Formats: sequence, structure tokens, C-alpha cells
Amino acid sequence: MNTETELPKVGHYGFLAEPFHCDFQNRLFVGHLGNHMLNAADYHSNDRGYGMHYLNTINKTWVLSRLSIELDSLPMAYDRFYVETWVEGAMRFFTSRDFKIGADDGTTYGYGRSVWAMIDTETRQPTDILKVNDGLISHYVDRSYPCPIAGTTRVPVSIADTEKVRSIDTYYNDVDVNGHINSVKYIEHVLDLWNLDWYRQYRLHRFDIAYVAEAHQGDRLNLYVRDCGTDTAAHPGDMASGGEKHYNVVITKTPAGGGKDVEVVRSSVFFVKV
Amino acid sequence: MNTETELPKVGHYGFLAEPFHCDFQNRLFVGHLGNHMLNAADYHSNDRGYGMHYLNTINKTWVLSRLSIELDSLPMAYDRFYVETWVEGAMRFFTSRDFKIGADDGTTYGYGRSVWAMIDTETRQPTDILKVNDGLISHYVDRSYPCPIAGTTRVPVSIADTEKVRSIDTYYNDVDVNGHINSVKYIEHVLDLWNLDWYRQYRLHRFDIAYVAEAHQGDRLNLYVRDCGTDTAAHPGDMASGGEKHYNVVITKTPAGGGKDVEVVRSSVFFVKV
Repeated sequence: MNTETELPKVGHYGFLAEPFHCDFQNRLFVGHLGNHMLNAADYHSNDRGYGMHYLNTINKTWVLSRLSIELDSLPMAYDRFYVETWVEGAMRFFTSRDFKIGADDGTTYGYGRSVWAMIDTETRQPTDILKVNDGLISHYVDRSYPCPIAGTTRVPVSIADTEKVRSIDTYYNDVDVNGHINSVKYIEHVLDLWNLDWYRQYRLHRFDIAYVAEAHQGDRLNLYVRDCGTDTAAHPGDMASGGEKHYNVVITKTPAGGGKDVEVVRSSVFFVKV
Repeated sequence: MNTETELPKVGHYGFLAEPFHCDFQNRLFVGHLGNHMLNAADYHSNDRGYGMHYLNTINKTWVLSRLSIELDSLPMAYDRFYVETWVEGAMRFFTSRDFKIGADDGTTYGYGRSVWAMIDTETRQPTDILKVNDGLISHYVDRSYPCPIAGTTRVPVSIADTEKVRSIDTYYNDVDVNGHINSVKYIEHVLDLWNLDWYRQYRLHRFDIAYVAEAHQGDRLNLYVRDCGTDTAAHPGDMASGGEKHYNVVITKTPAGGGKDVEVVRSSVFFVKV
């Protein structure tokens, strides 16, 4: 075990809401916030010896399985904010990692939860997280730091209950360093299902996304939506009034090389009146 | 004139090539590099009293008219790099701003040139740059700092000589704080015209883009390309061997509300063999 780096369990990373990463209302795009959360996770795990830098040397990699973000507000253009992240639990095949998004003036913008698997890059099979670096990750688990939002959930949706609303082709800029469509692009595609008029009236309160399979450049993404109506049961007590507008989204890919459509992403989106 | 801030004429801004801003070959996406250049321009002009922060208070804004980037190489994931920027010339209706992209170890990745207009946000008409803040910008002009690349050029292309290759719809995430399609999105759309196989064989050497008109959410963008063949005349002496692959691209918009197609962007792209 590597004991030379006695870093705190919770990592704290500062960011700036760049002006061109903000929407027409001057608020940081949630996709860019998601990118900062993934960066924080990357820096945190690299600094502690179980990140991609080390995993690349043993032909293993982290794969994001689920991400949930719950927001009271968003940083505005030029705001400095932080993302804190820590490992809440490490099991053989899944690690849960939590996030807090805040600012030094005491503002808490929101929280996040995520689930990650580790795979062997050659066999693409799950690998035992606790065997990596003699179970080093277990020494950094923090179950006490608060993350007061509901856990990541399976999105209960059947494609039969949805309506196909859009298809999107994938290109060079969509592909990340692993050769797959970048996780953040799906967040953007889901949130692009609503237009500026909608975002003048509603803000995103919660966003859940499950990454089911990977897509590659040239695959066509197909977006299916179900309007779940006004839903107060999913997150009781959260809403001041009027409940949430709840939608489920399924994304499939039509492979570039031909073949049957395959489900790649499921997402739940909850909006509240501004 | 505001003399309290005696800042150097050349601004120097540090950035990190974030892992999820890098392509499948671990190189910083040129779109993200462009975003950092626009950030540097924004910070530089704000710090010196003629940026958006001040202009917003007098109902004026900068509008990017042309941008050229010439690259020898690109930062790789996790590399720290800098963008330097300075005003090379300020005339009544146009300002020219240059860029250098480098690293502290002495690496020079490349250079950029840009042309900006200032407009009145209410009338959308050009405004006299030299009358803003008593011509403050003139005190920061630096004609001596080297920018050894060709100037921004008018892209000489008629749409009649091109082939329409793609149409792309615009959504919420494409719109910037001014309510227009973000300048960087066009860079990405142009570079998305080539696929991963192409980028395994060629790298971008030079990119010129002229912003002719603005597009809005819901407009459909139409991309037209002309293969200009292997061209050594445009930048003689730059290429070690084999010349450059040269393409011209025109983007038009089909307005969301109907009406005739309008040209919004012209671009020239030069690739070299890797």
C-alpha cells in the first residue's frame, strides 16, 4: 500500500464559470458542470493512486455507470465555485462517488452522486476494484461527509412508453480519449430537448443518467422521451410548491456499421418553475 | 483616461488541457483551444477597461469578425499551456488582436490573429472603438510583439463552387450569453466534416473563419465544402514536404421562422500529413 500521500478523503477543486460555458441567462451549462465534476473525480483519483494515470499502466480503466445531479441554483458567468468529491463506498465491482458543488461565500449550488465500474481495457470485462493497488481505494472511503440527495436510481422506463423525437449523428468532436462518445455529450443532448422558451420558465432541479452501453463516431443517436407529468412523489418535500415536471429519456444508437438499434443511455429529468 | 491600471500590453493566461477536452489522440480539441483564446481576449480586455464588463454598462459589445489559428502542434491531455494576447491595432471600426499559444518549457504551439468590431447592442450598428473610454484601447496597442503568421484573409469562395454536405439543427446548448450561436460551435462543425480516420493521417495546420452573420436557436445550419486540392501557394515555405490539403467551407442558416437561407460563416482549413 502506498502510504506516502496522506491526502484528505475529500478532494476540493476550484473552477471558474467561464463566460462561453454559460447559457443565454448567464448560468453555467449543466453539461459543463458535469465536465467539471468528471474532472474533479479524475484529479481526486489520480492524486490518490487509483486514477486513470495508474490504471492505464495495468490496462484497466474507470467507466462511469450512473450520474445524478441535484441543483438549487447554478454558478453565473465569472463566478468562482468549487467541486468537492469523495468515495462513499467501494465494492468489488462498483464504486460510489459523491459530489458537492459550492462557493467560498457559503453558497451550496447542489450535490451529485455517481457509480463507477472498473474494466479491463483488453477484455472489456469488469475487474475487482478492491484488488487494485492492494485495495488502496478502501483507505479513502468517507461515509460521513454529507450528500443529502437521493441515490442514483434505475430509470424505470420502457421504450414502448416513449415517443421518438430526434436523431443526432456523431462526429470527431464527440469522441473522447477512450474512443467513445463523451459522457457529457449525452447530458447536452438530453437537455437540448427543451428550448430557450422552456428554460425561461423552468430550471433543472434534478438530472439522472445511466450509461448502459458505449457509442462510437458515426453511430446515430436516437432520442425517445416520455412526459411523466407533474410528479411530486419522486422527491417529496423538495418542492416549495407546484411539483416537478418529470421526463424520462432513452437514447439508442443505430450503429454506423449497420445492425440493430441498441440502448445506450437512460435519463430522468426534473424541472421546477423559476 | 484610466491610468490607475498600468498593466502590460500583452496578457498571459495559463490553462490546463483538460482530459475530456482532448480528442481520441489525446490532443486538445481546436474548438476548446479557440474557447481558451476567446477567454484570454475577454480577460485581457476586461482587465484593461475595454472589455464586456464595461461595455455592457454602455450598451456596447465586442463582436468577433474573423479568427485565424496556425498550429505546429497541440497541447496533450494534462499539459499546462498559456495563451498570450495583445491588441495589434485599433481603428475606428475594427480592432486586430493577436495570440500566441505556448508552454513554460519553451514550446510554441502556434499563433492566432483575430479581428473584432464593436457594436451598439440596441441598434446593432458599428460603433467608434476609439471613442470608448477616451480611446483607452489605443494606449495598449503593441505592434512589436511578434505574430509570425499570415493575416486573417477573406475566404475567396462562391457557394456555387461548393457541395452541400450536411445540415445541423441548433439547440439550447449552442446559444451563448448574447443569445447567438456560440462562435466555437462553428469551429467544431467545420472540423467535424472530417472523421477519425482522416485525423489519424492529417493534422490541422491552419484554420481561418469569418463570422458573417449571427444565427439563433432553431436555425438550421447548412455546411458546403469545396475541396481546393493540394495547395502550396497559400502558405509557401511552411510545409516540409507534400503541401497542404486545402478546403473551403461555407455555412448558411435556414432561419427557424422561415425565409431565405443566409450565409453566416466562411472558413478555410489547411491540413498537413502527420
